[in-house]
Amino acid sequence: MGAFFLAAEFHTNYSGTAFKVERVLYQEKSDYQDILVFETKDHGKVLMLGGAVMLTERDEFCYHEMLVHPVAQVVENLKKVLVIGGGDGGTVKRLLAYSDEIEKIDVVEIDDKVVEVCKRFFPELASSFNDRRVNIVAQDGMNYIATTSEKYDLIICDTTDPVGPAEVLYSRTFYEAIKKALNEGGIAVSQSESPFYHAETLGDLWHNAIKPVFSNAKLYLAFVPTYCNGLWSFAVMSESIDVEAAPLKRREKLTDCRYYNEEVHRAAFKLPEFVKKIVKDMPVYY
Amino acid sequence: MGAFFLAAEFHTNYSGTAFKVERVLYQEKSDYQDILVFETKDHGKVLMLGGAVMLTERDEFCYHEMLVHPVAQVVENLKKVLVIGGGDGGTVKRLLAYSDEIEKIDVVEIDDKVVEVCKRFFPELASSFNDRRVNIVAQDGMNYIATTSEKYDLIICDTTDPVGPAEVLYSRTFYEAIKKALNEGGIAVSQSESPFYHAETLGDLWHNAIKPVFSNAKLYLAFVPTYCNGLWSFAVMSESIDVEAAPLKRREKLTDCRYYNEEVHRAAFKLPEFVKKIVKDMPVYY
Repeated sequence: MGAFFLAAEFHTNYSGTAFKVERVLYQEKSDYQDILVFETKDHGKVLMLGGAVMLTERDEFCYHEMLVHPVAQVVENLKKVLVIGGGDGGTVKRLLAYSDEIEKIDVVEIDDKVVEVCKRFFPELASSFNDRRVNIVAQDGMNYIATTSEKYDLIICDTTDPVGPAEVLYSRTFYEAIKKALNEGGIAVSQSESPFYHAETLGDLWHNAIKPVFSNAKLYLAFVPTYCNGLWSFAVMSESIDVEAAPLKRREKLTDCRYYNEEVHRAAFKLPEFVKKIVKDMPVYY
Repeated sequence: MGAFFLAAEFHTNYSGTAFKVERVLYQEKSDYQDILVFETKDHGKVLMLGGAVMLTERDEFCYHEMLVHPVAQVVENLKKVLVIGGGDGGTVKRLLAYSDEIEKIDVVEIDDKVVEVCKRFFPELASSFNDRRVNIVAQDGMNYIATTSEKYDLIICDTTDPVGPAEVLYSRTFYEAIKKALNEGGIAVSQSESPFYHAETLGDLWHNAIKPVFSNAKLYLAFVPTYCNGLWSFAVMSESIDVEAAPLKRREKLTDCRYYNEEVHRAAFKLPEFVKKIVKDMPVYY
């Protein structure tokens, strides 16, 4: 079979996900992180940032659909949207299913190298940035949200893991600023790591940053094969809307979904016992 | 950091799950398969059969709770139970939560070496075999079910992947024999592989072996981190009981669960779009 490269993300230093690399397409250190793009036989092209899988062509639909549609389906208005992170374009691509309502999408991505690389290697996602509604801001997410006077109907935190540039995006200060930047009836959603491998990160984020700030916060789950062996969590925050129970308002926009549907929306909020423990008032980390 | 062993299961030959091995505890070829037991830092002891992860101490609860409780909670009677495969003891351990009702558990495990190895390395699971209700039969599952005159309230197919000794356990002949061996009001459940990485195996099993035989068959999902990047499927079969909707009859037995609860039971049957496609009449494999 000959020699080959193996790309691996070790979620805990002791176990993880591995890919046989057909071809390395790009490998560079930006001002913020290592960027790696490679080709695989079963997952298509893979993007890794700082040693963590950001997306594979084959399963990005799981993550991006479940990050965008649960909130986009129930939010009151959908005119102004903020995406923090999301430099690959997968989130904006799903937002554009609602393009007749959306007037503006601000994408605050600290690392413009990521945007450039994704436009080159993942055009089916990053070409969404060419839409006239999209405005890319190369700025630190914390800095942007703390200083902006804009208000948004929907804020989506599509961030990397809490190491390096994204660390500050897991703080209470950040979520207080998020709350201030939401319009009435607005909703925010954050990817919130693996409840299995990052229980402490999720517990800290939940109890110290999100719960004290929002009166209506809930956790939901989705399966993303290449994110830490599959189980991924998302936190929704609002002052007025119960995302779990609210009626879907834009069903006719769901024609392209390969993961999301209404039943999955409701089911995603039903948590296994070990995840319920993390979000209870006194966290007992698994 | 020095040299170390890396144990990997490649779900597709091109990607998979990898573990840093602290210590190899057992490595032997039985009459049926390669058996490997090793110690890891974050998953405890790991058992691999034929190159596939059978269990890790840290996450076996996800699989075994979700294989046993959904059916054990709703089945009419729970006096006689058959387990096909299950040589590690994790399934029997969960069944014994219902030991005041259960009169007999027959475990048909073709490879008695697996039972022996698990008694030695996974006593917290395999010590369940010492219960007086448990009767271990070292026989081929197909052969047993085709020739037995016993009838069961519950049949649990806790089998390995459809290669080598388990291949025949994915056939229509096998499921016809399962149906004949069920008491009235009885239920069977089978682990049915990864809908993401084994869509064709699941589709074949569903459309050729299960659906033509049982009038009431449904698929449900659970998250098992070390089974093919996390999403695992299970098929329930019955002539009379809708496992998805039936009331739980034995709630007071659920005190030790770390995954299963009633909400998770209902939610597990809500399938993402790409899984729904597999179980529709004309399968469109993802």
